[in-house]
Amino acid sequence: MVGGGQLARMTHQAAVALGQSLRVLAADADESAALVAADVHLGDHRDLAALERLAAGATVLTFDHEHVPGEHLRALEAAGHRVAPGSRALEHAQDKLVLRRRLEEEGEPQPAWARVDTVEEVAAFAARHAWPVVLKRPRGGYDGRGVFVVQDADEAAALLAAHGTLLVEERVAMVRELAAVVARSPYGQVAAWPVVETVQRGGVCVEVLAPAPGLDEATALAAQELAVRIADRLDVVGVLAVELFQTADGVVVNELAMRPHNSGHWTIEGSRTSQFEQHLRAVLDYPLGAIAMTAPAVVMANVLGGAASAEGWTGPGLDERVHHLMAHWPDVKVHWYGKGQRPGRKLGHVTALGTDPAVVRSRAVAAARYLADGVLDGS
Amino acid sequence: MVGGGQLARMTHQAAVALGQSLRVLAADADESAALVAADVHLGDHRDLAALERLAAGATVLTFDHEHVPGEHLRALEAAGHRVAPGSRALEHAQDKLVLRRRLEEEGEPQPAWARVDTVEEVAAFAARHAWPVVLKRPRGGYDGRGVFVVQDADEAAALLAAHGTLLVEERVAMVRELAAVVARSPYGQVAAWPVVETVQRGGVCVEVLAPAPGLDEATALAAQELAVRIADRLDVVGVLAVELFQTADGVVVNELAMRPHNSGHWTIEGSRTSQFEQHLRAVLDYPLGAIAMTAPAVVMANVLGGAASAEGWTGPGLDERVHHLMAHWPDVKVHWYGKGQRPGRKLGHVTALGTDPAVVRSRAVAAARYLADGVLDGS
Repeated sequence: MVGGGQLARMTHQAAVALGQSLRVLAADADESAALVAADVHLGDHRDLAALERLAAGATVLTFDHEHVPGEHLRALEAAGHRVAPGSRALEHAQDKLVLRRRLEEEGEPQPAWARVDTVEEVAAFAARHAWPVVLKRPRGGYDGRGVFVVQDADEAAALLAAHGTLLVEERVAMVRELAAVVARSPYGQVAAWPVVETVQRGGVCVEVLAPAPGLDEATALAAQELAVRIADRLDVVGVLAVELFQTADGVVVNELAMRPHNSGHWTIEGSRTSQFEQHLRAVLDYPLGAIAMTAPAVVMANVLGGAASAEGWTGPGLDERVHHLMAHWPDVKVHWYGKGQRPGRKLGHVTALGTDPAVVRSRAVAAARYLADGVLDGS
Repeated sequence: MVGGGQLARMTHQAAVALGQSLRVLAADADESAALVAADVHLGDHRDLAALERLAAGATVLTFDHEHVPGEHLRALEAAGHRVAPGSRALEHAQDKLVLRRRLEEEGEPQPAWARVDTVEEVAAFAARHAWPVVLKRPRGGYDGRGVFVVQDADEAAALLAAHGTLLVEERVAMVRELAAVVARSPYGQVAAWPVVETVQRGGVCVEVLAPAPGLDEATALAAQELAVRIADRLDVVGVLAVELFQTADGVVVNELAMRPHNSGHWTIEGSRTSQFEQHLRAVLDYPLGAIAMTAPAVVMANVLGGAASAEGWTGPGLDERVHHLMAHWPDVKVHWYGKGQRPGRKLGHVTALGTDPAVVRSRAVAAARYLADGVLDGS
């Protein structure tokens, strides 16, 4: 697996049960996955030689992020390595312009969009769709980076000057964000988890509610079918997370990730087969596992470095906070990524499950908040 | 963790979620846990210097087997290392004579027993309790090794000549074998999973049924209370598995393990907190996790090297068998230990869960049998 972050870390856990061992390409020895995996290569994911050493003797090469250059992926494929998802599929998760063009060809629902190189093009687009518009860097963004809500032509001009070609999109009048996560094997078998609601703060996912509360069956089914169609048409192998905006009329595609994704962490405890195991099954061309939920309601809350990670913090230390969390919420499961604490950083997540979605959510959110900020609020 | 077997392997998986990294003392680089853990020391568990290097800088030292010499444990404790379970508790899992003496003092139910050095003593015991009797080596046995059902004095004489001092026990008229698995923290918090039925073949555990089918509540409660009492009185820290014989009158103690145990593997999917996570919580002095079952019936079946591991096997290879298993039983979870295949060896286990105990059992057993023997029988 290229990348040594928390996704590789949790994929390694799943690999252990399957009798596999995950070889990880990490940039540093103290990355999340590098701390816990037996077979760690240190190197840069933009270095073809490092990728070739990683792939040598491996069954299949897969990813915990989208940042490996396409030409390297094609070179590895040309050299006979199995790469999953393949370079042609992955391009749609790497380049938002490629994705928009393809979804348009496929007739799939998405926001109005255009490729823009000049401020006049942005202004013309805004004249058709109204300000503000959303400008996106086509490549390299994640967790809200590279996405800009732009109020006027001056702001647009500054961004174009800084970044060159951009993608402009209408600002969708959305009800909320959803995610449809599926997995697909090379054989073409697909498994679709229930559609979830994702709650973002500052462009970063902070909560995932499974299943999406109050989502009508028709929209849920349409979202799952959309994700399955995209997986099929793009020949995705592995997990595909389709991030969606729910609007008054249904759903439109925001973007894709072709790997285990934050919106699927709840599956570790909440589904018979976790997204990490399922990703491995898919890329190894095994049959996919059952995905029934283990409880009616499952909520995952991210722990972002908060007050308790800030300099000068004098409250309970991390170990003490974990201790209190376990005492207060014995049923909440903690996943800690082994990273150094820093404000805003994804340090871990917690998962709660049960029957009442509101109760489950409040427990997960309160537990995550306590880990992040050292603040115990009523739950 | 001292020992690099499958228990350490699965404990490492649990440690990853807690943000910990398990340092493992393995005898060989290809042992189960050594294949997947980042921090592996190669060395012998009977070598005090190796144990000291392992313990240096670690929060706590714990075990995946009982074979570390007591004097080494005491030396580590004297040097200020936290050892959990401690040497005084662990002695009762290391030496069956020590256990029998202690349970007698505590007034806990157990088979009639005696320490025997001569064939006359065995004959006198058999005169009181009837042949056959059970002779056991006090130390070092596991998976039925070191346990002998003896029909007459000649057999007893041969064993005494070979092994020296032995433990003799009456052969209990048992209905079946049960296990009461609990975990206890240094603080004294105890969590008790439901009592399970364990099915042995040739002295090796092959199935665990959770909860024990048809067990009356009074006996189940008595078994749990017995295990909690033993954990308390012996000051156990970590998981304690109490192996029990169920008789017409209740339960008697067969033996103890003070570590994650085969009879608790079902908890990985079957309980909100697995025995591996719970063992870590306990030895790290964290509060224990919730232990509600995730389904009404959970069955674990061991995969012992069978026909498909024998020389000359021409049927489907392991990878193909795993493939078929996943296709046939998408809801059965596989845990593969990464060991070389060899007849009789514990290679992995499978877990099934659901509502009907008989259906769940037949699925788990058939899946394990297919992995072991390459034989698909009706299920």
